[in-house]
Amino acid sequence: MKNTTLCYIEKDGSYLMLLRNKKKDDLNEGKWIGVGGHFLEDESPEECLIREVREETGLTLKSFLLRSVVTFVSDRYETEQMFLYTSSDFSGELIDCDEGELRWIDKKEMYDIPLWEGDKIFLKLMDETRDYFALKLVYEGDDLRKAILNGKDITDIPFQSL
Amino acid sequence: MKNTTLCYIEKDGSYLMLLRNKKKDDLNEGKWIGVGGHFLEDESPEECLIREVREETGLTLKSFLLRSVVTFVSDRYETEQMFLYTSSDFSGELIDCDEGELRWIDKKEMYDIPLWEGDKIFLKLMDETRDYFALKLVYEGDDLRKAILNGKDITDIPFQSL
Repeated sequence: MKNTTLCYIEKDGSYLMLLRNKKKDDLNEGKWIGVGGHFLEDESPEECLIREVREETGLTLKSFLLRSVVTFVSDRYETEQMFLYTSSDFSGELIDCDEGELRWIDKKEMYDIPLWEGDKIFLKLMDETRDYFALKLVYEGDDLRKAILNGKDITDIPFQSL
Repeated sequence: MKNTTLCYIEKDGSYLMLLRNKKKDDLNEGKWIGVGGHFLEDESPEECLIREVREETGLTLKSFLLRSVVTFVSDRYETEQMFLYTSSDFSGELIDCDEGELRWIDKKEMYDIPLWEGDKIFLKLMDETRDYFALKLVYEGDDLRKAILNGKDITDIPFQSL
């Protein structure tokens, strides 16, 4: 089991997204995601979040909100607990990112770019509620096979209806 | 790094506490704590929570609230991310627990029983706020050396003043 953080930084109705197109053997290759990464030994979730955002974007988070811990189960990868945050309170200037191309994406255009199926679910939920939610996503390869929201099976519900 | 859950089940102003006095080589031996345990592979935090509470108490949680993910760093043990919950919404009857003695402890008597120093901090915070808080506790042996609450060093603040 591994632990990671993912952050969606918000400004003027856009999220700062990363097109993963630079890293070798990147399981996220070709997908747009937020910024974040793996915990270092002895780090708290928030320490990992602040460090990863700074390394990948040059920005310093001043405050943030934990929206969910998303559990990813896959037939190809180790199970992952991903601490999901949003922040609109940051300082600094954007830098080039080693892992891909950073771009502010308008939330209205969010679903027109290549995203993981399960990411559409939590992006929609992040827009719908400020409450913490519990989400488990089960993948076979790139295909989302099961989605459990707050203990309820939502696999067959289109993300637009959440 | 390991992930665990811990739950404080609440009824009539008391918490269900476990005196850890039955397990061999228990790092919590002699201390009163809530109920919970380690994630199984592929479990979400909430699945682990519900399973551990059922196994240790016989009770079924119907709803619960995530209060914190507490990061424990120790010179003796692997770093632990502990998902901390409370619940007052459950069904079933108490069973005997393999790992120790279960007892309802009045919250007013909570600090008179043997507790870890850091546990007093989160128990106090759980009483003070319903908001999620981020807590990192650094131990040397049984001694709490550092406590960081929401990014702020609170090591020298008595828990009663939090």
